[in-house]
Amino acid sequence: MYEGAVQDLIDELGRLPGVGPKSAQRIAFHVLAADPADVRRLVDALTEVKARVRFCEVCGNVSQEPQCRVCRDPRRSPTTICVVEEPKDVVAIERTREFRGKYHVLGGAINPIAGIGPDDLRIKDLLTRLQDGTVTEVILAMDPNVEGEATATYLARMLVPMGLTVSRLASGLPVGGDLEYADEVTLGRAFEGRRRISA
Amino acid sequence: MYEGAVQDLIDELGRLPGVGPKSAQRIAFHVLAADPADVRRLVDALTEVKARVRFCEVCGNVSQEPQCRVCRDPRRSPTTICVVEEPKDVVAIERTREFRGKYHVLGGAINPIAGIGPDDLRIKDLLTRLQDGTVTEVILAMDPNVEGEATATYLARMLVPMGLTVSRLASGLPVGGDLEYADEVTLGRAFEGRRRISA
Repeated sequence: MYEGAVQDLIDELGRLPGVGPKSAQRIAFHVLAADPADVRRLVDALTEVKARVRFCEVCGNVSQEPQCRVCRDPRRSPTTICVVEEPKDVVAIERTREFRGKYHVLGGAINPIAGIGPDDLRIKDLLTRLQDGTVTEVILAMDPNVEGEATATYLARMLVPMGLTVSRLASGLPVGGDLEYADEVTLGRAFEGRRRISA
Repeated sequence: MYEGAVQDLIDELGRLPGVGPKSAQRIAFHVLAADPADVRRLVDALTEVKARVRFCEVCGNVSQEPQCRVCRDPRRSPTTICVVEEPKDVVAIERTREFRGKYHVLGGAINPIAGIGPDDLRIKDLLTRLQDGTVTEVILAMDPNVEGEATATYLARMLVPMGLTVSRLASGLPVGGDLEYADEVTLGRAFEGRRRISA
């Protein structure tokens, strides 16, 4: 509907996740009217990310160095590894400031429907990291959904016989949530995992 | 939270309209994992739009030429001008295939709260276009909200005394809508503008 360059931009923006045709149009017009320096900064940021960001050779997290910030940090405990699906999960856990160990990013979860099996994830790299005996504890922090559960079960079956302490993040009611709005699976898990209060 | 380039990209994406912090993060990770050629196409589209797209010297619509596609088209009637707020309104009206005249894009609407007065809109350019007497009809197609109404009233007061046929788009029930869900102002307008059915 628009002339060449505007329509091209709307088409390209519309390919981004979560950007529908209306948003793409809105962003395109914003870009059209924007200060050229602002658009240049966005273009540079896109180019820089593709040019400079790679994956950490140890844990698979995003990084601008061969090793990521967490793997480079000597204050982080090398005895505990928290296994996650994606780099954004690392950021979510870092925000809690609860965890002082290292990470391992699988790059997804086992999903037979999407054709993702254990060999498509960075599981071999995880086993290599466990070989020298430094790591004694593995926390499985997959998403609390079918694919995440399947992946955690698969890994637990492999890791428990190796004599490691293996745990899974607790499921239950979200803090600040409302019991009556919790879905039945979550509420069921909250019952299952109830904790005794001692006097 | 992320290292340099990734965080920079999230920040820049978050400045786009309708893109919140979560969407910005999602898009950034999509870009990270995307084929470099796809990202290059987005970067090129952004650069091209800023380099090549300007505003039509006649009507103010977006264009890659000094004059836009509608103004260049000799089959479009030069006697009717449809005045709109933004270039995207031109696209919306073109989609209806109902209008075969020319456009005039004001670049916004009168909005005293946002500090936009008549002088900030392309109203002088409109008056210049009306001077040679070719145009006999002006359709005011502003948004049906307070700012749009104010702008239409302002223009009508100026244009009617010039002997032009001036009209405003009809307000009423949206086609395919449900009467019971129409807000009272729209329903009121639908009554006000009711059309007699002759036998």
